[in-house]
Amino acid sequence: MLIVKKFGGSSVANKERVYNVAERILEDYKKGHKVVVVLSAQGDTTDELITKAKEINPNPSRREMDMLLTTGEQQSVSLMAMALQNLGFPAISLNAFQVKMNTTSVYSNARLKGIDSERINAELERKNIVLVTGFQGVNKYDDITTLGRGGSDTTAVALAAALKADKCEIFTDVDGVYTADPRIVKNAIKIDEITYDEMLELASLGAKVLHNRSVELAKKYGVELVVRSSLTKAEGTIVREECKMEKMLVSGVAADENVARVAVIGIKDEPGKAFELFSILSKNNINVDIILQSIGRNNTKDISFTISRDSLEETKDILESNLGRISAQKIEYDDKVSKVSIVGAGMVSNPGVASLMFESLYDAGINIKMISTSEIKISVLINEKYTERALNAIHDGFKDRLN
Amino acid sequence: MLIVKKFGGSSVANKERVYNVAERILEDYKKGHKVVVVLSAQGDTTDELITKAKEINPNPSRREMDMLLTTGEQQSVSLMAMALQNLGFPAISLNAFQVKMNTTSVYSNARLKGIDSERINAELERKNIVLVTGFQGVNKYDDITTLGRGGSDTTAVALAAALKADKCEIFTDVDGVYTADPRIVKNAIKIDEITYDEMLELASLGAKVLHNRSVELAKKYGVELVVRSSLTKAEGTIVREECKMEKMLVSGVAADENVARVAVIGIKDEPGKAFELFSILSKNNINVDIILQSIGRNNTKDISFTISRDSLEETKDILESNLGRISAQKIEYDDKVSKVSIVGAGMVSNPGVASLMFESLYDAGINIKMISTSEIKISVLINEKYTERALNAIHDGFKDRLN
Repeated sequence: MLIVKKFGGSSVANKERVYNVAERILEDYKKGHKVVVVLSAQGDTTDELITKAKEINPNPSRREMDMLLTTGEQQSVSLMAMALQNLGFPAISLNAFQVKMNTTSVYSNARLKGIDSERINAELERKNIVLVTGFQGVNKYDDITTLGRGGSDTTAVALAAALKADKCEIFTDVDGVYTADPRIVKNAIKIDEITYDEMLELASLGAKVLHNRSVELAKKYGVELVVRSSLTKAEGTIVREECKMEKMLVSGVAADENVARVAVIGIKDEPGKAFELFSILSKNNINVDIILQSIGRNNTKDISFTISRDSLEETKDILESNLGRISAQKIEYDDKVSKVSIVGAGMVSNPGVASLMFESLYDAGINIKMISTSEIKISVLINEKYTERALNAIHDGFKDRLN
Repeated sequence: MLIVKKFGGSSVANKERVYNVAERILEDYKKGHKVVVVLSAQGDTTDELITKAKEINPNPSRREMDMLLTTGEQQSVSLMAMALQNLGFPAISLNAFQVKMNTTSVYSNARLKGIDSERINAELERKNIVLVTGFQGVNKYDDITTLGRGGSDTTAVALAAALKADKCEIFTDVDGVYTADPRIVKNAIKIDEITYDEMLELASLGAKVLHNRSVELAKKYGVELVVRSSLTKAEGTIVREECKMEKMLVSGVAADENVARVAVIGIKDEPGKAFELFSILSKNNINVDIILQSIGRNNTKDISFTISRDSLEETKDILESNLGRISAQKIEYDDKVSKVSIVGAGMVSNPGVASLMFESLYDAGINIKMISTSEIKISVLINEKYTERALNAIHDGFKDRLN
């Protein structure tokens, strides 16, 4: 069996944890399985490097940031190889150049295009445990890119797909996917199995367990994902196309605080104006999430949308310098919001779900600023100070209908 | 003009120094020159990474050490690019993969084989200041190698040769090459010009100003080197093939404490025995410096030699496990020695130089353990506790004949 295992930065933060992970890797290796391991940068390394960079340049170029940050993963994989070798097992570390992890050219948010599995397969044939740097890639100019925060999950799934692995295990500091963040919602329940689509909504909504794109990729290539704890031997949560158990109404409640709302007020009510606005943002690689357009007055309309809070400053700069083209009366920004969502494949056929969610929020005295719905999720934007209260209120509201 | 500049780790240890170096880089760039900069890892980064590795594995494999250590230079170049960009100038950082810095396969002590200058030239055409990681290379297996400690000097000279640069400036924390280490010998004098050969002997003898192989390479390709301070604007020392000024008798006195002596006692006095010994060491990549063979008694002989103290433990292991093949009565190790040398192109024609050196040591009450001479240098091995006293005694002894 060929197994890809991914461990996050906190799992390899110090010597003791490195050896703990080494033991987890060896469990399967000793059984005769081929093992490929994807690692993130140790502990706070990435944050420390970001701080160092911002001290030198408050607005560092993305290309140079990628060049800087990817050193963290290279340190992790070489240290893990040393630990495994010290335990008497053959191991080799490889970076993005060495595994030809090809990506698009967009720095800090590149997408994987392909992996040349030749080198990894050769090392596996030599009985090596192969340790691959997560998060990083190389673009067609031979420059280093990164896949965005949490991109190591994507690296792991992409490797599992390229190597036709039997399983891709994502190790985290929680023992699986829960119906809500167990640190915030006390009654949260662990989910044994969940579909890609449900997981996708939960991941993109800030469930913080799996990186969004890793789930997309797993779905695309049919890679069976297992989310489990690096600290316990609990079974974890399996993510796959079809789940054996009956579809539950709501599989989870999640909150995302990395959100900001932009309201573009008084745009001329002419064809092409909305296109103009979002084309400017898209050209600058700003990802837009929820979009709402209100019916305007006096031949004008208002468009509001959400973006990740990280990109708020950049979005402001872009919009301010394109005010002429957008031709709006004013633009308002709100970075004190959070997005709370419920997800469930069974939701589509149950019209009462939305109203139950709104009722729970109303009962908790929480005002809704924006609503967005899809077939398997409902999201609302609220004041961020009520995030915790909202999660608990909704979770309690749905307690009889949760997975 | 195309200028290659190399700055060591202490020159870029923190934000202030990074900006100080950025200004030094811009002096020439603003004059319209093309500038390529080679950087080492910041401050103590390399030592910290070594400590981290040894915590995890007391005997880390050299391949993994190279993978780990090279992250330091990558951080340096990306941070410097950010600093230059913040000052409003175009800059780009490149690592060993990106400039195709090809080396031999020997980890931790690889030799440069060639550089593909295409990428660098393209970036220079785009008016970029090009920042290249020192110390590192890539071997034919696509694995990362390092050139040994101080290898960034070699990187700089190799780049200067490959790019046909007009000048290669090595910036250090001293303002040039001195007749002796000015921190130890108060009366040391700065040398304005020195030949490659003299510099080579001084470098290999521990003058700590230039990395040995960088001078060899400069000599081979006729690269004019300038050693100067990163802190002052003083002219520094020029290293070239021919020096305008008259040859001085002795150009410098230097000490090397990274030395250990190995004495192999009672080897059978048969042909091939010395070859056997050094072939074993060579196969294990142990560099041997001075070799002395004494006339033996009872059909045996003694061979003693010096190695770098760093490789003493490894050498012990190798020799102990090959005792049978070496067939010696015993092997003694001494790591409390230092090598003190005088260097000068004018030495060969002056038979009195050696005796003056020995007299100076005798007057200072220092016992000589081993002597080795070449056309332009004389080295003696002494007890390391007398290093400072020996340097001053010799420097004083030659004070009228120094450069």
